[in-house]
Amino acid sequence: MKAAVLREVGKPLQIETVSISKPGPREVLIRTKAAGVCHSDLHFVEGSYPHAMPAVLGHESAGIVEAVGSEVRTVKVGDHVITCLNPYCGHCEVCLTGHLNLCISSETRRSKTDEPRLFREDLSGAGDTRMAQFLNLSSFAEMMLVHEHACVAIRKDMPFDRAALIGCSVLTGVGAVTHTSNVRPGETVAVIGCGGVGLAAVNGAAIAGAGRIIAIDRVPAKLELAKQFGATDLINADDGDPVKQVQELTGGGVHHSFEAIGLKATAEQAFRMLRRGGTANVIGMIPVGVKIELNGSDFLGEKRIQGSFMGSNRFPVDMPRLVDFYMSGKLNLDALISRRIKLEEVNSAFDELKRGELARSVIVFD
Amino acid sequence: MKAAVLREVGKPLQIETVSISKPGPREVLIRTKAAGVCHSDLHFVEGSYPHAMPAVLGHESAGIVEAVGSEVRTVKVGDHVITCLNPYCGHCEVCLTGHLNLCISSETRRSKTDEPRLFREDLSGAGDTRMAQFLNLSSFAEMMLVHEHACVAIRKDMPFDRAALIGCSVLTGVGAVTHTSNVRPGETVAVIGCGGVGLAAVNGAAIAGAGRIIAIDRVPAKLELAKQFGATDLINADDGDPVKQVQELTGGGVHHSFEAIGLKATAEQAFRMLRRGGTANVIGMIPVGVKIELNGSDFLGEKRIQGSFMGSNRFPVDMPRLVDFYMSGKLNLDALISRRIKLEEVNSAFDELKRGELARSVIVFD
Repeated sequence: MKAAVLREVGKPLQIETVSISKPGPREVLIRTKAAGVCHSDLHFVEGSYPHAMPAVLGHESAGIVEAVGSEVRTVKVGDHVITCLNPYCGHCEVCLTGHLNLCISSETRRSKTDEPRLFREDLSGAGDTRMAQFLNLSSFAEMMLVHEHACVAIRKDMPFDRAALIGCSVLTGVGAVTHTSNVRPGETVAVIGCGGVGLAAVNGAAIAGAGRIIAIDRVPAKLELAKQFGATDLINADDGDPVKQVQELTGGGVHHSFEAIGLKATAEQAFRMLRRGGTANVIGMIPVGVKIELNGSDFLGEKRIQGSFMGSNRFPVDMPRLVDFYMSGKLNLDALISRRIKLEEVNSAFDELKRGELARSVIVFD
Repeated sequence: MKAAVLREVGKPLQIETVSISKPGPREVLIRTKAAGVCHSDLHFVEGSYPHAMPAVLGHESAGIVEAVGSEVRTVKVGDHVITCLNPYCGHCEVCLTGHLNLCISSETRRSKTDEPRLFREDLSGAGDTRMAQFLNLSSFAEMMLVHEHACVAIRKDMPFDRAALIGCSVLTGVGAVTHTSNVRPGETVAVIGCGGVGLAAVNGAAIAGAGRIIAIDRVPAKLELAKQFGATDLINADDGDPVKQVQELTGGGVHHSFEAIGLKATAEQAFRMLRRGGTANVIGMIPVGVKIELNGSDFLGEKRIQGSFMGSNRFPVDMPRLVDFYMSGKLNLDALISRRIKLEEVNSAFDELKRGELARSVIVFD
């Protein structure tokens, strides 16, 4: 099958022919129908987070179940599914207390001594080359082999390209608002960064009934787009300190802020733009080694800053609900997709992300 | 009346004769029976937080109601009361959502144009000198004049010297555990700093049913004392990196950590010693201008750091419960008091705090 492979940090992905194993007892083989190209893929291409190579990238996808292992209980052949990069074991402490997104059990991964899920066949007979699976998925390929707890079945009238986005950015943005920070109706929200995740956070705030939803970015077109997702106020960070702008708009700061870029400066702004007792959420992936600095005395006002990973999801519950939100018109996915491309065009999508352009590209498979 | 006055940063308090106004409509005049000498007083003496001067210090106290204003509804003459430094208005957003401790309404304070609560009479007739009231209380004085929402009546069989401690350090330490961080039965807790607040946090963790309660300090005698408050494990920070020690003890970190000193280094340790999804609470007053630094990538594990101010109290509810906890043997207050002193000895109590010695001194009034 065709797959987009990262062989070296900083280099373009290469389209290669890759082999995929047969499903183990609890594994599911999925025919990929659509895969979003996300800023997190770019983080790994650029090397700000390390990863084993060669690796097949991609981690935001939807498809159709092609085959299942002998013990699989949660999906069946022909099901339409959305994948999730954080498979859960279902019986560790974090799973049992509702924090599936934090599960790091090894039992949903193949071990290094097993046959790998992805490999490159050596036709000369000298031995196959192991390919690394990226974030338990590797969605930039025609087929995916995943643990059954890395996907969930959804209704069949849901379009695949929009379903794919629920697999990562939308789950992450909406969940940060509804789960991690638990926004209550009428509370004020600021979202820094209006890419796919940020726009989903804006939309999540609208779904949660937030009173005032302030979208912050430097790109006027992104800010305009945020209106379609429910933003009530727009702040261009180039018009002056966004912290001051938020404080002026709200009379002292917001109840909840969301950093959806992954930068030191914006994470610190998210904390400073809070009102007393407010909560800042760091969604963006701040590069390894970068420290953020907070005024110690700000803690006297009971301000809080916390990480939000994959929207604190319980994805088998959340994703079907998000699908319903789309189908009923509450969740805007159409405007998130700026381009539909073929797998071979994946590098152009990265170029677009680097330029900070609108929303995101989705790879559509035939 | 006699009062201990701060006239200059870094200088000893002076015992002076100070006058106190009559209660306004919603004010209460309290005869002070006992007042704790707390590290926060020392912060102001040392100038790490600014305050208007001359000021009568002291903010952790209990006494008897001597007189009440015409509109006072919550206490009456003869009531035994504990004071609280954060008066609440009762009708702003934070009050109405249960966060009384964050109320900053001006209506519970006298304005700068009113007659002050404390002043020094000028017998020459040239005009009285305004004295600043410290944290809405000024407990280092024979009488206190406070808003009715800065005190609560308690049962009369409660000893005043121990009641005074509930007024600040115990409310702060126990509340950080039960309210701010919401420790659940069986969860693991680490407390950095075993002064009055830290010991109360240890005790709060025991009351909340925490599974493992790790006390951390550098002074062996304080660690031994922590056992009497419910600590199950003791770590001397001089025996090696306390973060590593906590991780080894718990297999990866604690659910909740509490910083009860007010230092950059220990606040950062509190964050680093968390398990995935854990919550660090900064109780200590970090001096103005000091920044704490956190690894941005730690947020991927959904770690959280938050301020806890006065134990996120709803003090009119909490303080009578804490009194009951003491009377029924769940709350250890006896071992918190290292010395009972007279008002004139207040400076020696500061010297003791500076040396980092055991627990705290309580000023007892005749």
